[in-house]
Amino acid sequence: MKRKTFGPVTSQHVAQLAGVSQSAVSRTFTPGASISPATREKVLKAAREIGYRPNAIARSLNTARSRIVGVVMSYFDNQFYPQVLEALAQQLDELNYHLLLFVGDRDGNVDRIFDQIMQYRVDGIVLASVSLSLELSEECLAAGIPVVLFNRSEETGIASSVNTDNVAASRQIAEFLLAGEHKRFAYVAGVADSSVNLARQQGFVSTLEAKGVQDIRVVQGDYDAQKTARAAQELFSSSAPPDAIFAANDHMALTVMDVARYEFGLRIPEDVSVIGYDDTGASGWPSYALTSASQPVTAMVNATVALLMKQIESENIEPEQVVVAGALIVRHSARRPHFGVVEKEGLSLFQPQEVE
Amino acid sequence: MKRKTFGPVTSQHVAQLAGVSQSAVSRTFTPGASISPATREKVLKAAREIGYRPNAIARSLNTARSRIVGVVMSYFDNQFYPQVLEALAQQLDELNYHLLLFVGDRDGNVDRIFDQIMQYRVDGIVLASVSLSLELSEECLAAGIPVVLFNRSEETGIASSVNTDNVAASRQIAEFLLAGEHKRFAYVAGVADSSVNLARQQGFVSTLEAKGVQDIRVVQGDYDAQKTARAAQELFSSSAPPDAIFAANDHMALTVMDVARYEFGLRIPEDVSVIGYDDTGASGWPSYALTSASQPVTAMVNATVALLMKQIESENIEPEQVVVAGALIVRHSARRPHFGVVEKEGLSLFQPQEVE
Repeated sequence: MKRKTFGPVTSQHVAQLAGVSQSAVSRTFTPGASISPATREKVLKAAREIGYRPNAIARSLNTARSRIVGVVMSYFDNQFYPQVLEALAQQLDELNYHLLLFVGDRDGNVDRIFDQIMQYRVDGIVLASVSLSLELSEECLAAGIPVVLFNRSEETGIASSVNTDNVAASRQIAEFLLAGEHKRFAYVAGVADSSVNLARQQGFVSTLEAKGVQDIRVVQGDYDAQKTARAAQELFSSSAPPDAIFAANDHMALTVMDVARYEFGLRIPEDVSVIGYDDTGASGWPSYALTSASQPVTAMVNATVALLMKQIESENIEPEQVVVAGALIVRHSARRPHFGVVEKEGLSLFQPQEVE
Repeated sequence: MKRKTFGPVTSQHVAQLAGVSQSAVSRTFTPGASISPATREKVLKAAREIGYRPNAIARSLNTARSRIVGVVMSYFDNQFYPQVLEALAQQLDELNYHLLLFVGDRDGNVDRIFDQIMQYRVDGIVLASVSLSLELSEECLAAGIPVVLFNRSEETGIASSVNTDNVAASRQIAEFLLAGEHKRFAYVAGVADSSVNLARQQGFVSTLEAKGVQDIRVVQGDYDAQKTARAAQELFSSSAPPDAIFAANDHMALTVMDVARYEFGLRIPEDVSVIGYDDTGASGWPSYALTSASQPVTAMVNATVALLMKQIESENIEPEQVVVAGALIVRHSARRPHFGVVEKEGLSLFQPQEVE
């Protein structure tokens, strides 16, 4: 039921269509205001139908910007996230914005946190390491609050996101390990339904399958050190253990290396090659020298802040999916192939296309 | 010039004494209000002299609490701080307080950040990894804003603080290394004038000196990985390198271990023992198995939040210095003495007094 409107769509139109009071419409779009879930649902539905943009109300109730960006983060034991947080805080600070930190539940339930964020009338939200439900994305959009998913995406494309090319990077890891003449492969998965895990698994496994590889095992590490240790024990205890392991992030890859060396006496990379994803600080420590797909923190944070600022300043939220370029940083945790490794600015990278 | 007052001290008394307008007094104690440094200094001086507590003004201007605590932190590459930040955010969240994050300059200059914090009318401030000048401490106190120094202290005792017993723990490290029959000692110092560095250095060096040890070198790591690597190279290149090294935090100790093993081919602990301070996550990884003085994150954060809440709720800021108990966690990076190591709840601790 599309409603024809002449002139700007007002909250009165929304109230009429939803069959609620105008005050209910106003309260739906006022962060922190009291409104029953059922009424709110009616209002949001009506607002969507007639294309109502409530920014004006939000602005009239809250004329000054708070200059606060809410950041939801978890997995602080994975060094990648503190690095991201530090860079985010510094870049926002340079723009005289500040960062209100919320620690996310690992189970991804963001609803409770979301209500809290709304109490503070933030100018924007960055969600790192939690997923945003479609419902909440729509609510943010309706409330005129820019949201950027960091190192996460959602299928509908309704929220903006910043990622590296997880599929392409994981394909390259498969090609690197194939070029190194490995035979038995394993993927240590992150939380099964997280978008980056799905993309990395798909890129890795589909590339191996396309090359006729049949010995591919997938075990669950769930981004958790203890679960990852158990998954690695399972792999190394099997009758024909893998000689090539890709873990969905560095945090898990380092655990796999420790289990291989200190519980099974395996040599890395002579007995087993291990590759991670993130290229965090510890991966460069000589005790690990982990080969890893990089996620350039500065570039990803730049893109995130630029997206937020564009949307805050234009008051126009057009979702954008930004993909930042990474590279496979070659160190010593995986056998090197005889081709494709190039030296650039003090780093070894796998770039077979530039050699061929 | 002490002024006798009858009845409560008011802003009018302060204005009179300072020779300024009442509005200037009000603006001095209003976060974010415009006031010249010279006038503010006059007002603060007068307020101190007559014991004026401006809480009432602050409250009348800002009746509702912001429920925001400002946290200033730096050194995110030292795993200790992200662990602290996660715990702080979670504990504040449980009390329906939230955390506004400011990344501190490593040079310790907190003035610029402080002005920003004041713009947000925070209910309290936690300063981790930056020092607070006496002037700023006084200003917070005058403005009625509780401040807790985390893992830092300042000499006057005007600000509250939460620490472990840095002197006692470092004395114990010296005793542990002496009991392990080491001969040549080195201390890798953090930033030279940081309070924890001074305490750790003093506890370690004075204990060795009291036992007649003369071979004690002090090198500067400044809590920085690159500087620490250079300091370690200097130590291991010398004609009689140390066989026992205490680094002022784990972050530096791990770097010292990597340099010893991968640049000098030294065995740990056969050739050199290394001990750190913090007991961060990576210290327990089997690649390092670092012996380290623990700083129990949960207990320290509990104490910090309890202090803040007490001061916020009572509106009475009595500075308190809280010392949280730690222990020397014995792993495999330092030779174990023949006595004093006890097993407790799955950990090995150095507690010679309980054995003797």
